[in-house]
Amino acid sequence: MRFGRIATPEGMTFAVIDEAGEVAKAIAGTPYTDPEYTGKEYKLEDVRLLAPTLPSKIVAVGRNYADHVAEVFKESAEHLPPTIFIKPPTAVVGPGAPIRIPDFATGVEFEGELAVVIGVPCKNVKAKDWKSVVRGVTIINDVSSRDLQFSDGQWARAKGIDTFAPLGPWIETDLDKFDFSDLPIKAHLTHDGKTETKQDSNSKQMIMNIGEMIEWVTQSFTLLPGDVMATGSPAGTAEMVPGDFIEVEIPGIGSLGNPVARA
Amino acid sequence: MRFGRIATPEGMTFAVIDEAGEVAKAIAGTPYTDPEYTGKEYKLEDVRLLAPTLPSKIVAVGRNYADHVAEVFKESAEHLPPTIFIKPPTAVVGPGAPIRIPDFATGVEFEGELAVVIGVPCKNVKAKDWKSVVRGVTIINDVSSRDLQFSDGQWARAKGIDTFAPLGPWIETDLDKFDFSDLPIKAHLTHDGKTETKQDSNSKQMIMNIGEMIEWVTQSFTLLPGDVMATGSPAGTAEMVPGDFIEVEIPGIGSLGNPVARA
Repeated sequence: MRFGRIATPEGMTFAVIDEAGEVAKAIAGTPYTDPEYTGKEYKLEDVRLLAPTLPSKIVAVGRNYADHVAEVFKESAEHLPPTIFIKPPTAVVGPGAPIRIPDFATGVEFEGELAVVIGVPCKNVKAKDWKSVVRGVTIINDVSSRDLQFSDGQWARAKGIDTFAPLGPWIETDLDKFDFSDLPIKAHLTHDGKTETKQDSNSKQMIMNIGEMIEWVTQSFTLLPGDVMATGSPAGTAEMVPGDFIEVEIPGIGSLGNPVARA
Repeated sequence: MRFGRIATPEGMTFAVIDEAGEVAKAIAGTPYTDPEYTGKEYKLEDVRLLAPTLPSKIVAVGRNYADHVAEVFKESAEHLPPTIFIKPPTAVVGPGAPIRIPDFATGVEFEGELAVVIGVPCKNVKAKDWKSVVRGVTIINDVSSRDLQFSDGQWARAKGIDTFAPLGPWIETDLDKFDFSDLPIKAHLTHDGKTETKQDSNSKQMIMNIGEMIEWVTQSFTLLPGDVMATGSPAGTAEMVPGDFIEVEIPGIGSLGNPVARA
């Protein structure tokens, strides 16, 4: 099942989106329980998709792909193992919303990633039990100013600036339809009217798998319904500039596209 | 005026606390508007003070005291300027609630700090206008596992573990009663029944002042009512172990005390 959040003429609502991505059926409440339909239906083309969750936090596992560690840090993953950082809720935007780059954030790159959306409050989850606490998966673009990332040392600002966490297009709850050990992840950058596939990788390159990450993260942090865990970016990240359009694609979920603008 | 949040037999509520710290008058709604009293009053000794705000994020300015930079990083503040990191909402606990240290978080130290509580949604605030977006001040203990801080590189885990953000005891809104360029900050650690004053510093040691920090932080992040900006720890931080009690004291606000326990 696919849960989205939509802006309609009557206000914002969560909704179940059909497989074809054409119809949104509004639900009462949130996506974290069985849907209770309100009876209102919208054509998706008549409404605006928003970020499908309003997380209280995004916990992100960085340096989780060896090839990305090499390209960004010029180091081996053995010397720079995965690390945890946090993106704040105010960074979240939905599909189609502009990524707004302020002047001081230079060297801004996209990072297309699989995102896990939590379904129940949880702490100290064992790796093998990860599906019991996850409501579904979606896509995150972990937008990062490489210059701030290295000059600040801490990544909070480089990766936490308003609009630097595009999320969506929806939460896919059917986890069993995915092989998470072999999931393609792509990012297509359109610059000057020309589209190039910059990221063309696969979750099989992950250093920690989803269960291991959930176990690691929940040793420290209580995760709440709607919270997002970003699972790390594969190689191929590259700079975006105002005027570009960036689309991250994961089969079985869909694609998350955002224009890039000046703040 | 002092706004607190209290747990009463009838549930949680925000309240106005009298100057003597004896009576809590319940209010409808939040502390971010003029208080609307419900008519219910409690003796403070009959209720439990909770963290006075439920922030959507804690934005913290690290390395904002030269003496603390020297003691922790063995470096000069010129080479390691202030940096920004984020503590998640799930780290917040109130006065008296235990700081729970998990086994893997070693070298856990207190950091007593002045905390600024935001009153209105704000972005791109100029330094001179900082009081117009701040509802009041309180105290934060920026609990930090020094070992995780250095082994992870990123500080999210070292400083973001559940219970690692004691906050309180209340929000003092009368900003004009403080001289923020000369505000004493102390931390008293009780270990084996013996209390020692470990931090005994003053905000005059700050590298960036509150206005400069608000300007810097809001260039990147929209701050929301209830969000907290931690202004950095002075020198004197030291390890706490289960069984200890740590109290941070700032004149004009009060003190924030928490026991230390094993998670």
